[in-house]
Amino acid sequence: MRIVDLIEKKKHGECLSKDEIQFFIDSVMDGTAPDYQIAALLMAIYFNSLSEEETANLTESMIKSGDVIDFGALTDSIVDKHSTGGVGDKVTITLIPLLAAAGVPVAKLSGRGLGHTGGTIDKLESIPGFNTQLNIEDLIKQVKKINVAIGAQTQNLTPADGKLYALRDVTATVDSMPLIASSVVSKKIASGAKNIILDVKYGSGAFMKTAADAVELSKLMVNIGKILNKSITAVITSMEEPLGRAVGNSLEIIESIEFLKGNLKSGDIVELTYSFATLALLQLGLYDNETEAKEFLVHLVESGKALDKFRELISEQGGDPNVIDNYDLFELPAHKITCVSKKTGYIQKIDAFKIAYACKLLGAGRERKTDAIDYSVGVYLNKKSGEEVSKDEVLYTIYSNDSEKTKLAQKYCDEAFLIADNKVSHGSMIYKIVKAVEDEDV
Amino acid sequence: MRIVDLIEKKKHGECLSKDEIQFFIDSVMDGTAPDYQIAALLMAIYFNSLSEEETANLTESMIKSGDVIDFGALTDSIVDKHSTGGVGDKVTITLIPLLAAAGVPVAKLSGRGLGHTGGTIDKLESIPGFNTQLNIEDLIKQVKKINVAIGAQTQNLTPADGKLYALRDVTATVDSMPLIASSVVSKKIASGAKNIILDVKYGSGAFMKTAADAVELSKLMVNIGKILNKSITAVITSMEEPLGRAVGNSLEIIESIEFLKGNLKSGDIVELTYSFATLALLQLGLYDNETEAKEFLVHLVESGKALDKFRELISEQGGDPNVIDNYDLFELPAHKITCVSKKTGYIQKIDAFKIAYACKLLGAGRERKTDAIDYSVGVYLNKKSGEEVSKDEVLYTIYSNDSEKTKLAQKYCDEAFLIADNKVSHGSMIYKIVKAVEDEDV
Repeated sequence: MRIVDLIEKKKHGECLSKDEIQFFIDSVMDGTAPDYQIAALLMAIYFNSLSEEETANLTESMIKSGDVIDFGALTDSIVDKHSTGGVGDKVTITLIPLLAAAGVPVAKLSGRGLGHTGGTIDKLESIPGFNTQLNIEDLIKQVKKINVAIGAQTQNLTPADGKLYALRDVTATVDSMPLIASSVVSKKIASGAKNIILDVKYGSGAFMKTAADAVELSKLMVNIGKILNKSITAVITSMEEPLGRAVGNSLEIIESIEFLKGNLKSGDIVELTYSFATLALLQLGLYDNETEAKEFLVHLVESGKALDKFRELISEQGGDPNVIDNYDLFELPAHKITCVSKKTGYIQKIDAFKIAYACKLLGAGRERKTDAIDYSVGVYLNKKSGEEVSKDEVLYTIYSNDSEKTKLAQKYCDEAFLIADNKVSHGSMIYKIVKAVEDEDV
Repeated sequence: MRIVDLIEKKKHGECLSKDEIQFFIDSVMDGTAPDYQIAALLMAIYFNSLSEEETANLTESMIKSGDVIDFGALTDSIVDKHSTGGVGDKVTITLIPLLAAAGVPVAKLSGRGLGHTGGTIDKLESIPGFNTQLNIEDLIKQVKKINVAIGAQTQNLTPADGKLYALRDVTATVDSMPLIASSVVSKKIASGAKNIILDVKYGSGAFMKTAADAVELSKLMVNIGKILNKSITAVITSMEEPLGRAVGNSLEIIESIEFLKGNLKSGDIVELTYSFATLALLQLGLYDNETEAKEFLVHLVESGKALDKFRELISEQGGDPNVIDNYDLFELPAHKITCVSKKTGYIQKIDAFKIAYACKLLGAGRERKTDAIDYSVGVYLNKKSGEEVSKDEVLYTIYSNDSEKTKLAQKYCDEAFLIADNKVSHGSMIYKIVKAVEDEDV
């Protein structure tokens, strides 16, 4: 078998066999496929796509290229949730204690990643003392004890995907549906879960620009899950502006605690957290009625049981649970600058990219893997889309440790807000849910 | 400027500017464009093609990447002829003395190449003593003296094309019209000619499988010639079987001499040589009437003037002109095996690839640049398509220095012939002529 023949086949729109795809991934891993041949094949895939079967085979080969996490007896009962990433997205943090409180075992391994803020793991580490260095055995032991554990993912998962992604990034072949689908799904399956809920975002701030693209990607991921015997549900959510009001590491933990305290009554974080949790209960067969499942979950928040579970999780992993009652126990920024609106009107939209850029400027994220993160900084949106604001009323708040950076961040935040005279209505965050069992559902 | 942005543009079918194409070729040459990005861009070009203007700009950038031969005052008056390569193609050798005898200055630099036989230069070196190591000054001096000179091309022409071709070969991106066109035309223009006649072959034995593809490629090459201020004429010729009867180095020289002696009265070599020569006379404005031009050329052959010019060329370049009158002065093979037909009938077709393979087996070509060539070996087709053959009549002759190789070559040659009961008619070798002035002409 020769890579050049696989390129030739794909170039002419033919399907690659399971063996051919395995040969491709083997050649990527053992270095016998030169980068230029990989790049040419990726570009041919961009143009002629892959069938669902080819995509499933690619996914499987990528899974086999590295470690596969084994949660043992827990495998069938745990749920894993993955988001394609969004500004202010702390739904994993609100969801984990809620699900655990609902009796769903949660064993989660999460990455650090690069970006405008840290990843879920970094955010949790903004809680003083919180330890995320758990190995699989520790993780399983803790789940058995308190029903929940979250650790930094240190295993060598899907290294073939890592190699392909690095090349895709520099050869303009990132935006290929089957390549995105196989990348996301292979990583999730290698992470050990059998039940997977995917948050697929669309909109100007997301990777999928249109809802139609997000639906196409979701169907593909759900279907390759079916082929590979995993239960995947994809929730297609709009990402036109930051999720929630807080963007920054400790700021997002605080907003998550507010949710768990029942202080958030409505809004995107509330909608998404309950939706994902409800789906998980249905997917595991713990409830067969959506309304009842949701009522049960609301009860867990209102009764304080979800918050107690978070408190337990923090304690168990060495963190200080008193942060829940006293936010001043988080690392505090030197400056907290409230910025007011220059006009009266309604918020039309908030550019997620610009808020993200401001947070990165302030030091909330990292550029390189070795960079340090400033947990204390970020931006809090006092107003969100659809809300009214008066001239000189507080629009947003900057948390910063550097007055020069504050000024620049302020410039980007000011630009991010679009305020107009008339009120705009904002619909549900959730555009569509794509499930493996039925074909789709709203 | 970044290569990844050029890939992104081309991926979406946008046009690359002149500056962007120059940047691409500069990056290929200085090594800053990694092979994987070049490969991705080539594949995007395969799918989304290049406009004529982009192709002309690519051609120009490739020309500028290396040496450009300067024939000085001769530039406007000389004609260069290029063939996309074919089994038994000796039309350059028949054409050169004929054109020179007709008063057209011929200064030709030719490559050696790899293949089933040597290139034109290797074939000429089968003439004892013939020296092809001429520098440009020697070449021009000789043209001024006897109107004709031919040397081995040793300059570093279009190195960017060399680099791209090497990558195209291993990334299944060879068969892209604009990439083929820019490759051929850039090399011809860098070779110094202003008037170029291209023999574009099509058929099972050629790179272009269909006449329609050959027409498309020809129009593109003629049009980019126009943009770059060169006069290109493309002659689209069928290549279903070997050209002429001889395949091998000295065998092809002998067949060329037979043409120049006027001993070949009809057939593909006669048709093509006169067609190309006529076109050259018209293209240079020496004749404006095709019939008159052709009559003049036939007269040059019949009167022996074309043969005299070849004799002069051989002498001037140190070769033994007596080979013209005594073919035994060529290096002789140990064995000359006549092979007979197993049945009576008409030749339907002769597979050029199989004959080529037999010649390579016998040692007529080289695999690596450093391999030696056996000038004496090859295959002579005693019968060509459309001709009648009786059982036990000679079908072809093998010239060989190794009886083991002879047996294998005989197997391939036997397979190459398709003989059937009914006579097939074979039309003109020339399918279409694409000129810069008119749009096309048959």
